[in-house]
Amino acid sequence: MVSRRTFLTSAGAAIVGAGFVSRAGAASIPEAAVARSAATQPPLVPANGRPYNPVVTLNGWTAPWRMRNGWKEFHLVAEPVVREIAPGMKAHLWGYNGSSPGPTIECVEGDKLRIFVTNKLPEHTTIHWHGVLLPSGMDGVGGLTQPHIPAGKTFVYEFEMKKSGTFMYHPHADEMVQMAMGMMGFIVVHPKNPDFMRVDRDFVFLLNAFDIDPGSYTPKVSTMLDFNLWCFNSRVFPGIDHLVARTGDRVRIRIGNLTMTSHPIHLHGHHFEVTGTDGGWVPKSARWPETTIDVAVGQMRCLEFDAAAGDWAFHCHKSHHTMNAMGHDVPTMIGVDHRGVAQKLIRLVPDYMVMGERGMADMGEMEMPLPENTLPMMTGQGPFGAVEMGGMFTVVKVRDGVKRNDYRDPGWYKHPTGTVAREWQDDSK
Amino acid sequence: MVSRRTFLTSAGAAIVGAGFVSRAGAASIPEAAVARSAATQPPLVPANGRPYNPVVTLNGWTAPWRMRNGWKEFHLVAEPVVREIAPGMKAHLWGYNGSSPGPTIECVEGDKLRIFVTNKLPEHTTIHWHGVLLPSGMDGVGGLTQPHIPAGKTFVYEFEMKKSGTFMYHPHADEMVQMAMGMMGFIVVHPKNPDFMRVDRDFVFLLNAFDIDPGSYTPKVSTMLDFNLWCFNSRVFPGIDHLVARTGDRVRIRIGNLTMTSHPIHLHGHHFEVTGTDGGWVPKSARWPETTIDVAVGQMRCLEFDAAAGDWAFHCHKSHHTMNAMGHDVPTMIGVDHRGVAQKLIRLVPDYMVMGERGMADMGEMEMPLPENTLPMMTGQGPFGAVEMGGMFTVVKVRDGVKRNDYRDPGWYKHPTGTVAREWQDDSK
Amino acid sequence: MVSRRTFLTSAGAAIVGAGFVSRAGAASIPEAAVARSAATQPPLVPANGRPYNPVVTLNGWTAPWRMRNGWKEFHLVAEPVVREIAPGMKAHLWGYNGSSPGPTIECVEGDKLRIFVTNKLPEHTTIHWHGVLLPSGMDGVGGLTQPHIPAGKTFVYEFEMKKSGTFMYHPHADEMVQMAMGMMGFIVVHPKNPDFMRVDRDFVFLLNAFDIDPGSYTPKVSTMLDFNLWCFNSRVFPGIDHLVARTGDRVRIRIGNLTMTSHPIHLHGHHFEVTGTDGGWVPKSARWPETTIDVAVGQMRCLEFDAAAGDWAFHCHKSHHTMNAMGHDVPTMIGVDHRGVAQKLIRLVPDYMVMGERGMADMGEMEMPLPENTLPMMTGQGPFGAVEMGGMFTVVKVRDGVKRNDYRDPGWYKHPTGTVAREWQDDSK
Repeated sequence: MVSRRTFLTSAGAAIVGAGFVSRAGAASIPEAAVARSAATQPPLVPANGRPYNPVVTLNGWTAPWRMRNGWKEFHLVAEPVVREIAPGMKAHLWGYNGSSPGPTIECVEGDKLRIFVTNKLPEHTTIHWHGVLLPSGMDGVGGLTQPHIPAGKTFVYEFEMKKSGTFMYHPHADEMVQMAMGMMGFIVVHPKNPDFMRVDRDFVFLLNAFDIDPGSYTPKVSTMLDFNLWCFNSRVFPGIDHLVARTGDRVRIRIGNLTMTSHPIHLHGHHFEVTGTDGGWVPKSARWPETTIDVAVGQMRCLEFDAAAGDWAFHCHKSHHTMNAMGHDVPTMIGVDHRGVAQKLIRLVPDYMVMGERGMADMGEMEMPLPENTLPMMTGQGPFGAVEMGGMFTVVKVRDGVKRNDYRDPGWYKHPTGTVAREWQDDSK
Repeated sequence: MVSRRTFLTSAGAAIVGAGFVSRAGAASIPEAAVARSAATQPPLVPANGRPYNPVVTLNGWTAPWRMRNGWKEFHLVAEPVVREIAPGMKAHLWGYNGSSPGPTIECVEGDKLRIFVTNKLPEHTTIHWHGVLLPSGMDGVGGLTQPHIPAGKTFVYEFEMKKSGTFMYHPHADEMVQMAMGMMGFIVVHPKNPDFMRVDRDFVFLLNAFDIDPGSYTPKVSTMLDFNLWCFNSRVFPGIDHLVARTGDRVRIRIGNLTMTSHPIHLHGHHFEVTGTDGGWVPKSARWPETTIDVAVGQMRCLEFDAAAGDWAFHCHKSHHTMNAMGHDVPTMIGVDHRGVAQKLIRLVPDYMVMGERGMADMGEMEMPLPENTLPMMTGQGPFGAVEMGGMFTVVKVRDGVKRNDYRDPGWYKHPTGTVAREWQDDSK
Repeated sequence: MVSRRTFLTSAGAAIVGAGFVSRAGAASIPEAAVARSAATQPPLVPANGRPYNPVVTLNGWTAPWRMRNGWKEFHLVAEPVVREIAPGMKAHLWGYNGSSPGPTIECVEGDKLRIFVTNKLPEHTTIHWHGVLLPSGMDGVGGLTQPHIPAGKTFVYEFEMKKSGTFMYHPHADEMVQMAMGMMGFIVVHPKNPDFMRVDRDFVFLLNAFDIDPGSYTPKVSTMLDFNLWCFNSRVFPGIDHLVARTGDRVRIRIGNLTMTSHPIHLHGHHFEVTGTDGGWVPKSARWPETTIDVAVGQMRCLEFDAAAGDWAFHCHKSHHTMNAMGHDVPTMIGVDHRGVAQKLIRLVPDYMVMGERGMADMGEMEMPLPENTLPMMTGQGPFGAVEMGGMFTVVKVRDGVKRNDYRDPGWYKHPTGTVAREWQDDSK
C-alpha cells in the first residue's frame, strides 16, 4: 500500500535540482497561483482586460493572470497533488497548481493568451487546448505538433482566442496515464459583448473517474471500463458542493467529459436545452428539450434552464456511477438462504448477512466499518433520511430568497404545507 | 439455486401481517389492478375524463384509474413478481401490480393525479416521476425530498400534469438494486388537443436488463456492465411481441432506457425522426433523419415514421444485445484444431465441438440441451429459417390489410413474386 | 496458435468442390474484383452511368461494376482474407473480395443495382443493406426476409437506390461472429445532381474492432466489451493512412460504426457539423457545431469542415481506444517501490521495471521486444518525437500547395517561424 509519505518522496525526488524554470529567471514568468482546497471558490471578477460575467467552478477555482504588453499571461504547473475526493478519502493524483482538476482559465473573445507550462512531473507532458482554434504548432500533441515538455522544463504557448465558447485542457502525452491520474482543466472564453448568451448563474465542471482500490491512495492507470470513483471535478457525493440558484434564474451548467465512457446527466424538476458545445453555440432552431443529456467522452455540453424552487437531484443516470467503491461483485441475497456465502461477504461488508436478504437499502442507513481511506458505497443524509448515493450525484438548490452573487449553501428546502409525498391517512373516516 | 418456492416464501414472509394499508380503510383507496400476463394488452380507451388516443404498451398494459372530486386516482403496489422473460424462462423480479415493468400510466395534460403507492417489498422504496415537472416534495427522491416508504406502508403523491409528453417512473431508493430487480414503468401524458402530434399507432416500452445465471431465477443486483438478458419491457426475443401496423400508417414508438448502458435502436426499411423526448416535443427544425437512435440511460426517445409494407427487423445494434445468456467466453473455433478445448466446451454447449470450426450459425439452427430455465443464446424461427437472435430484437410487421385498431399478429409477410433475394439462376442459358 | 497455413487450409476445405457458382455459368456473372492491399486506393472515376464525385475509402477501395440492360451489376464474394492491421501484424479475418472491410459500393440516386453475393465461407451468410430503403425481401435478414445463403452458393439482390445517402453492408446471419471476423463494407449513393452537397474531399471508413490475443492471428468472436484492436477500416495507428486536403477545402468524412460500443470521434483544430446520417441529409437548421461526435453502433455520421493548414490529430477520444493490445491489467507503478511485482511484469514488458515508476511515456519512446505478430501498445513517430498512440488515431494533413485530386502523403507540416510551443527563454535578460 502506498502511504502518503512514500508517494510524496518519490514524486518529489524527480524534481530535486530541476529548478523552477530551466534557463530563465523566475521573475519574468508570472507567479503560479496554488489552491489546495476542494471547496468551490467565489467567481473571480476580472480586475483588468475586457469585462465579462465570471463562471463558478464546482469544487474548483479560476486561475489569476497578469496583463503584459497586451497579452494575458497564465502559468500552469503540472505536478503531483493530494485531492480530497470527499470527506474521509484523499487521493494522490497529478494535476496543475496544487489541484486536480487544475484551475479554470477564463478569458474573452479576442484575447491573446500566453500560457507558461512548467513540468514538475517525473515524466514528460504537454497541454492540448481541446476545442480551441489555434495554429497547429500550439495544439499540444506531443511528438506531432511540438516536442514533449521534459520533466523540469517550462514551455510557452501563445494563441489568440478567436471565438467565445467552452473548452478543456489536458495532456496529449502519455495520455491515458496522465488523464487517469487527474490532469485536466476547464477553459471559458467569454463573448466580447457581455450581454450575448447572458445567464444569471454559470457553473462549470469536468466529469472524471478514478480506479483506486479500497484502502489505497493512487489510481490504477490502465483501467479501461471498471472505474470505482465517478467524479464531478475529482469529487464524489457527498463531497460535491451544491449548485445554488435563485428561483427564476437562468442557469447554465457547462459539463466536459474526460472519463472513458458516456455519462447521461439527469436534472430533476426541469426541462433544459443544450445551448453550446466545444464547437460553439447551438442555434435555437437546433435545440432539443431534454431531462437527460448524454455527454460523450471528449464532449462539452452547456445546459440552460429556468430554475424552479426546490431541492433537485442532479446526477449521472447510470446507477453504478452514483455509487462509490465496493459496489462490485456483491452476490444477490434477495430471497436467498445466505448462510453459505456469509463468511466470504462479512469480510467485505460487516453485518451484511443480516441485511442483504431484503435488499441493500440498509447499507445507506447504517454506519459500517470500512478500510482506511475508503468511502461508503451508498451514503449521504438529506432532510428526510438516508440518500443512499455516491459518485456523480449532487443537488441543485433553488430558493426564492437567494441574492444575486450569493452561492452559499442555503440549507434544505422548506416545502410549503401539503407538497411532500406523505403516508396515506384516510380523511373519509 | 433459488427455486420458485423458496423465492415466494421468503419474499412473502416480510409482508405477513403488514396489512394492505397501514392506518386507512382499504375502501378509500382505489383497487390496485393486477396483470400477470406478459402479452400485449389492447389499448385502454378512456371511460371518463378528457378524451385521448391511447398507446399500446409492448408486452404490457395500462393502469386503470378512478375519478374522484376532479382527481384521477391510481394505485401502484410495489411487490415481488414472477415474469416470463420468453417462453421457457421465468424470472423472480420486483415490479408493480403483478408485473415488471409496472402498468403504463396514461393521462391528459392538465389532469390532477393522485397516486397511491403501497410498498409490499421487504425494504423501503419511493417512486420518482422521471421527467414530470412537479413540486420538489413530490419528486420521489428518498431522504432528499420525502421520507422513504417503509415496507408495508402506503404513501400518496399528488401533482398536476402541466405538459403533454413521455415520462417514466422508477424508485429513487436503493436505486441500483430496485432497478436491477425490474422496478419501473411508463408514463404518457396526452395533449389536451387529441389532434396535436396525432399518429395512427403509438407503441411504448422500456429498455431494461438483467443478469441471471443460467439455471437460476433471480437477477444479480450489483452487475454493472456484463448483463446477459437485454430486454424490451422485461422480455427477450423471441418473447417480444411484434409491432403491427397498416401500410402508410404514421407510427410512433416511444422508448425509455433504464439499463446501465446506451442502446442504439435500429429499424430496418425506414428512415425515422425523433419527435419527442422526456423534456418535450422536438421542434421540426431540429429533427435529424435516422435509421439508428442511441437511447442513453435515463433518456426517452419517440420515433416516428411512415410504415412501409413488409417484415422489418427492429433491434439494438450492439450485437451482444441481440443474444441471450451463454454468449460469453466462448473461444474462437474458426480454423482451429479444437480437440484440446473440446472437453471444456462440451459441458457448456453439447455437440459444440463439431460446429464451431465453421462459425456459430449452426447454433441458431439446432436444438441443444440447456440448463433448466435458460434460453438459447441464438434462437427463433422466421418464414425462411433460423433467425439466430435473442435479446433486444423483434419485428415490425406492416401490412396493407390491417384494420385501424387491430394489433393481432398477421403472420409472416407475403412477398410479391420476384422481390426476395434468391439463388442465382442463369437465364441466358 | 493458428499459423497462416492451417487457417487457409481449414477455411478452404469447406469450399472444395463447391464451384464458383452453383448452377450457373460463371460468364453470366460479373467478375469479382479482388484487392488485397491495405493502402488507400485512388478514387474510382465512373466510366459509365450517371456522373458523380467519387469518394476515397480510407485504407480501402471501391468495387467496379458492369452495366447490363440498365442495371449496375456488382459481385461480392464473402470469404476468408488476410488483413495487415498495421506494419508488423496480420489478422486472419473474413471479408469480401480479398479485403476486410469489403470494397465500397458507389452508385447514384435512381440507379438499379443487381448485386451477386457468392458465399465462400464455411457457413451460411446473408448481406443486409443497412439504411437502404428497399423491398422487405431484399433486406438480407437470414430466416426473416430470405433463406440464408449456404456455403458455396450465389444469391442475387436487386433494388433501386431511391435516395442519395451513406449506408453500410454487413451480414445478418450468425451476426455477432461474422461482424467480429470483419465482414462489412461501405455504400455511398451519390445525388443525381453532382452539385448537391458537393465537397472538395470526401473520405469514408468504418469503425470496427477485434480481440486478437498477442501472438495469435484470429479474432475471438464472443468478446463483447474488452476488444484490444480498435480500428478505422481494419487498421490501427500507425497503419491508418493520413487524410490529405488543401487549405480551405470543404472536407467531408463519413464514418459508420460496426463495433460494440460508441466512439466519440474528435478532430483537432476545427469546428465541424454533422451534415448527414444513414437516414439522410441533416437540415441546416438542425446542425450542431462540434469538435467530437459520438458515433453509436449502427450509426453513420458525415462530418464537414473547412480545412485549416496543419497536422491535426483525428481520433477516438476514449483513450484506451488509441492504444493497441497489452494495455490491460498493468498495475500502477507511479510512486511505488515496484521490486515486488517486477518479476511478473518483466515477462509482459521487458525493461518495464525501470520505467513505470515515472509514468508510461517511456513505453512510447523505446523499442521493446514483443510477441510475434503483436503491435506495441503505444507507438508511432512524428516530426517532434514519439506520438505514443495506437488504435483509432490518424492525422488530417492540410497544406496550401496540395493539388485538387492529389491524395499523396505530403510529409510533416512546416510550421511558420514562432508558431510552435517552445521552451521558455527569458528575452528580458
